[in-house]
Amino acid sequence: MAEFSLIEVIRERCAVIRDDVRLGIGDDGAVLAVPADHELVVSTDTLVAGVHFPLQTAPFDIGWKALAVNLSDLAAMGANPAWATLALTMPSADAAWVEKFADGFAALASEHHLALVGGDTTRGPLSITITVFGFVPVGMAITRAGAKPGDWICVTGTLGDAAAGLACVQARDDGAHELIGRLNRPTARIVAGLLLRDVASAAIDISDGLLADLGHICARSGVGAELCVDDLPMSPAFGEYADVSTRQRLQLAGGDDYELCFCVAPDRAPALLWNLAQNGCAATRIGQILAGHEIILSDDCGARIEIPQHGWEHFT
Amino acid sequence: MAEFSLIEVIRERCAVIRDDVRLGIGDDGAVLAVPADHELVVSTDTLVAGVHFPLQTAPFDIGWKALAVNLSDLAAMGANPAWATLALTMPSADAAWVEKFADGFAALASEHHLALVGGDTTRGPLSITITVFGFVPVGMAITRAGAKPGDWICVTGTLGDAAAGLACVQARDDGAHELIGRLNRPTARIVAGLLLRDVASAAIDISDGLLADLGHICARSGVGAELCVDDLPMSPAFGEYADVSTRQRLQLAGGDDYELCFCVAPDRAPALLWNLAQNGCAATRIGQILAGHEIILSDDCGARIEIPQHGWEHFT
Repeated sequence: MAEFSLIEVIRERCAVIRDDVRLGIGDDGAVLAVPADHELVVSTDTLVAGVHFPLQTAPFDIGWKALAVNLSDLAAMGANPAWATLALTMPSADAAWVEKFADGFAALASEHHLALVGGDTTRGPLSITITVFGFVPVGMAITRAGAKPGDWICVTGTLGDAAAGLACVQARDDGAHELIGRLNRPTARIVAGLLLRDVASAAIDISDGLLADLGHICARSGVGAELCVDDLPMSPAFGEYADVSTRQRLQLAGGDDYELCFCVAPDRAPALLWNLAQNGCAATRIGQILAGHEIILSDDCGARIEIPQHGWEHFT
Repeated sequence: MAEFSLIEVIRERCAVIRDDVRLGIGDDGAVLAVPADHELVVSTDTLVAGVHFPLQTAPFDIGWKALAVNLSDLAAMGANPAWATLALTMPSADAAWVEKFADGFAALASEHHLALVGGDTTRGPLSITITVFGFVPVGMAITRAGAKPGDWICVTGTLGDAAAGLACVQARDDGAHELIGRLNRPTARIVAGLLLRDVASAAIDISDGLLADLGHICARSGVGAELCVDDLPMSPAFGEYADVSTRQRLQLAGGDDYELCFCVAPDRAPALLWNLAQNGCAATRIGQILAGHEIILSDDCGARIEIPQHGWEHFT
């Protein structure tokens, strides 16, 4: 089976049609039109088998997740997804595997009306690199750099599920469908990102763990933060998982949730949270931005809590 | 050494400043401005160690080549390079290796005033995926689809050097500097691509071998072609390499030359070839487009020659 047929398999399954794709897959490059008065937002992420997902992950889920983690970056910038390129490296040309992978990719791509515009299929150990492209009106991208002392710190959805899901997979506890589902098929918070535009002062997606990712906002904004660990939102399935201290560790330092952590001025916060909830992506206040550069944790009585290990970095 | 420091090493060495990069590396995504009246051209290519370059290739050369093969796709579309993202997967965090890799990438990036706008560094077997972005005025991208019977078929530079260079590396013949240099540091024919805009009827870059890549032009344009094997341009170093039949095979089916193969109407061909030569990227007529769908080979007496093996496909 040739490289060209693998690309065909993927292309056939990812057949989103967009007017702004002037020339799609099948030439040396794609030709694309960015709408007037918009800027392009670009992000790229690689998933390596055994590092970013367990080796036994189903190919459908790998296709979904590889796109979802990239869309999540667009969401954090407040961008509207448009296109993606896909570089797939795999050990052998397994057409059945590729079909399922492409189905997972296509399911999420269709949901966001995202067109696959280019790709490369190569032989080697399984890994997937996707580059995604989205649009924001000029000057409207949300960055990590605008948080100010007094801003509320909020997070969409719930935290800890994916890290608990990974622990279940590793323990071969296949019954934890909800948690494992959150690990394998994360939700890209695109709608939330669009609602944050022009309101949030800073945003990031939580890929490496809440503390690590909030730390990026603090570093870029030149601020500190206080988090109330009792306010961290959790799903019912997660609430039944493990003891309190394990749960707190997973919520603070577990990766792969792909929720958005964002900051917003107090006078704009209630309306934003209401707006998010009305649009199916409820968010929760979990703390506030402080002057300084430290992140401190407290419980709901205001008592200080020791910071556990930070999030997860490759190569550390 | 953390992922974040690796990205810093690369970023410091690739410090091209461009006004159209509104936000570069360091957030969830880059924010980029495409100039008015232009379309975006995007291409992506992965290089896997041991598949796309010999394992012993110097890190500087890997950085150069990974960018060059992507720029070559922009050249074939007639696009002006602007930005790139880089996904680097490597087995361990080797800072010295990354510095040399980044120097190679940066050397070529500076030459084309290309800014690195995003990246991801992950742990795993060595591979590099780059996505490049360029601009063309609206409607001016050159595709594979416009070749017409009677068009001249031309090629920039010389053919076969890279394939001969690979054979030398495999035979541990380190003395063949020129040939190995062409394998390791291909030239992206960006200037030639710009001159082909609005003149060439079709173009492709030669990555998989002349016959295979010309085959893509023929398939997309719905035409056939005749090549004169005695007209294939060769470098002096290549002219001294091996016997005639080996040389012909390498010129027709060897990959990695990254020259441009293009078609042009006969009345526009001489001026274009003159213009290319004036701008330091001489090209040679090597055949003509025919009706039908076959590619035939002849010698300079017009005698038909059997087609040797086609180019190189992954997974075949």
